[in-house]
Amino acid sequence: MQILSAQYVITSAKNPPLIDGALVIEKGKILDIGPKKQIFSHYAQAEVIDFGESILFPGLVNAHTHASMTIFRGLADDLPLMTWLENYIFPVERHLKPEWVYWGAKLAIAEMFRSGVTLFADMYLFEEEVIKAVEEAGVKATLGEGLFDFPSPNYGPLENGLALTEKLFKDFAEHSRIKIMACPHATYTCSPDTLKAVANIAERYDALIHIHLSETKDEVSLIKARYGKTPPFHLDSLGLLNERLLVAHAVQLTDEEIELLAKRQVKVAHCPESNLKLGSGVAPVPALLEAGVCVGLGTDGPASNNDLDLIGEMRTAALIQKGLTFDPTKLPAKDVFSMATSLGAEALGWPELGCLTKDGPADLAVIRLSSSHLTPCYDPISILVYSARAGDVTDVMVAGEFVMRDSRILTFDEDEAKQKVLEISQEIKALLGR
Amino acid sequence: MQILSAQYVITSAKNPPLIDGALVIEKGKILDIGPKKQIFSHYAQAEVIDFGESILFPGLVNAHTHASMTIFRGLADDLPLMTWLENYIFPVERHLKPEWVYWGAKLAIAEMFRSGVTLFADMYLFEEEVIKAVEEAGVKATLGEGLFDFPSPNYGPLENGLALTEKLFKDFAEHSRIKIMACPHATYTCSPDTLKAVANIAERYDALIHIHLSETKDEVSLIKARYGKTPPFHLDSLGLLNERLLVAHAVQLTDEEIELLAKRQVKVAHCPESNLKLGSGVAPVPALLEAGVCVGLGTDGPASNNDLDLIGEMRTAALIQKGLTFDPTKLPAKDVFSMATSLGAEALGWPELGCLTKDGPADLAVIRLSSSHLTPCYDPISILVYSARAGDVTDVMVAGEFVMRDSRILTFDEDEAKQKVLEISQEIKALLGR
Repeated sequence: MQILSAQYVITSAKNPPLIDGALVIEKGKILDIGPKKQIFSHYAQAEVIDFGESILFPGLVNAHTHASMTIFRGLADDLPLMTWLENYIFPVERHLKPEWVYWGAKLAIAEMFRSGVTLFADMYLFEEEVIKAVEEAGVKATLGEGLFDFPSPNYGPLENGLALTEKLFKDFAEHSRIKIMACPHATYTCSPDTLKAVANIAERYDALIHIHLSETKDEVSLIKARYGKTPPFHLDSLGLLNERLLVAHAVQLTDEEIELLAKRQVKVAHCPESNLKLGSGVAPVPALLEAGVCVGLGTDGPASNNDLDLIGEMRTAALIQKGLTFDPTKLPAKDVFSMATSLGAEALGWPELGCLTKDGPADLAVIRLSSSHLTPCYDPISILVYSARAGDVTDVMVAGEFVMRDSRILTFDEDEAKQKVLEISQEIKALLGR
Repeated sequence: MQILSAQYVITSAKNPPLIDGALVIEKGKILDIGPKKQIFSHYAQAEVIDFGESILFPGLVNAHTHASMTIFRGLADDLPLMTWLENYIFPVERHLKPEWVYWGAKLAIAEMFRSGVTLFADMYLFEEEVIKAVEEAGVKATLGEGLFDFPSPNYGPLENGLALTEKLFKDFAEHSRIKIMACPHATYTCSPDTLKAVANIAERYDALIHIHLSETKDEVSLIKARYGKTPPFHLDSLGLLNERLLVAHAVQLTDEEIELLAKRQVKVAHCPESNLKLGSGVAPVPALLEAGVCVGLGTDGPASNNDLDLIGEMRTAALIQKGLTFDPTKLPAKDVFSMATSLGAEALGWPELGCLTKDGPADLAVIRLSSSHLTPCYDPISILVYSARAGDVTDVMVAGEFVMRDSRILTFDEDEAKQKVLEISQEIKALLGR
């Protein structure tokens, strides 16, 4: 039994923060939560960690990323999407090695811990390597192998990819920290038959499907030209638009499509920084939330962001909606904090995460308030969203175990991951003839 | 004589970074600059500080802020501008004390050093207190007392404000780190007579004028209704639109106004995060730069941002233009780095700053690349703009003197500033009945 206390404890965006609050942790769960004084006297024998002048808050949820793409961070920027993909990313991905994916994911998890993230959604190639990294690092994840019609550098032809997805569903059915989802890449890379085959598997395992949807205007035009319908209506006609679908991006949506996503209880992963950086646009988040859609927050891959900082992502999400609508009341700090916690957790199939409640899981993070840029603190949620940065996170706990303590990652060797990714970056430069 | 060396030395956005570069510093200036090997052999006796796996770059320039407003950081967010001003900022500013301005500025300078800033523009009340903080902290600044038609909590009636401005011009005419500018607040708070009187003083001292301009749609409508002209044309008719004018914001501009600003050689301080957060919109930066306008980058006050992180501001500036135009090639990392360095320096009247050149001033900052989120580094300007954060800055030098070394501020007691601002925040809460 362990007591954690802090000047501010944010239990969820809905409740006012506890001032001088404390949590009792036992067997990975929150046994009790309340004012420090009360908790200290009720559990006098427990070990106490007092974080003092700090904010303790629910672990953040990164609702969409390709973690291993840390190996491509800053490889090429400020380019048209197709130039970036065809001249840089695709030529290198053709030579992708399992160990690159493993070390890229390890580094990504270090970076996510430092941003207070305890759960993330991932879709990439050689996903078993990401799973290995997740198991060793002690983080939680919902993830799956990227599926598309053309041959994969991992599994080869699509049927092997479908078989691999089924194998992952079976292998990780009972895992306490890992959930598998079926990951068809997008409507423009997966034929209707592929999408239906994937949906069939996901249905049999009662699992999430994760897909990129309506990210760019070009995608919408292409799908309309190919199938006579926009991407959401296309998916709907194939029977994929339901409560088990998590779509990334959802930038280019009409009001009718927003209504449709709400009616079908589809979940959205909003990735504002990647959408800006790639010139895709800005998703209609306030309208989605008003329609009742569950919208989480994601960084997308670190090659188009270029970081995995979910705290910075909250800030960008909140700022951009105000600027675009000329309305400073749009997407207030509380709403964006919900997206980064409870809504993201719900979207990823972990509805019990993203908040701190009695009997709930002890997945949390701590930010020390002693830095100049966090002084003064009139409102802890405001400080978290508008002033804090990833580097301010000092401690992270997943399922009652510290994975980061006093700014040091405990579950794996972060320096080794950095060194390996530096070596991989040399191989990538050589591949590109640099 | 001192040699500073680093894995990457960025001399300016225009030149490719030096790999394994070094600078020789003597009497506040850069005596020589070049490859490490060459510098080490030519200056064998000099003391060497090797920053190793780091980026050494020109000190950043914050082209518009109200530094002391750190005391209001996060006091109220997500509110309509007038509610925020009338219910929170103005009621407290009526009771503003000189020591609040002093300690607020001290804390702000600590935060700016940690973001790599060595020069900033400031306009506020009790500006002599900011000057005191600047002198003690060892930073450079261009600053002035805010002037407007209504009585000031500092100087009372406007004529005293004009006299104070003249006094500052005289007192700091020869200062090596401080330049004074005349600071009429805005066209909606200063009558034409006030603006002409201010312009007259600035002309006599051959000094800059700094004003908020075309920040919001409401401002444009108001000035049009009051004077029959939009803010830039209104200022032009009063003779203020010239090469000595630095305007903050410039969000709501027509193509004709962009052309006019370019023709008159007016300088602009772009403040993207504040403009987003207050719902003002997004300034047409690519069009301004294409027209040849000198555009620097500013954070605005930390009460509407809510930080003084110019590294984050570079990132936001670069991302937002791409997202709004659906063009990922807009405002590339190099251009935004220029804005945060040489263009900002030029705008603030220090054309010799913002770059590292032989015989130029030794104003610089260092970022350590050892963090996970800065791994790998394919391109140092990309890493600086898209992946780095204020907390990554380890060392800052102004005029050849370290003001921050190994993440510790050397010139003043940062903890004291934090403590004082915490105490001030209690007074502010009491004033607002919280």
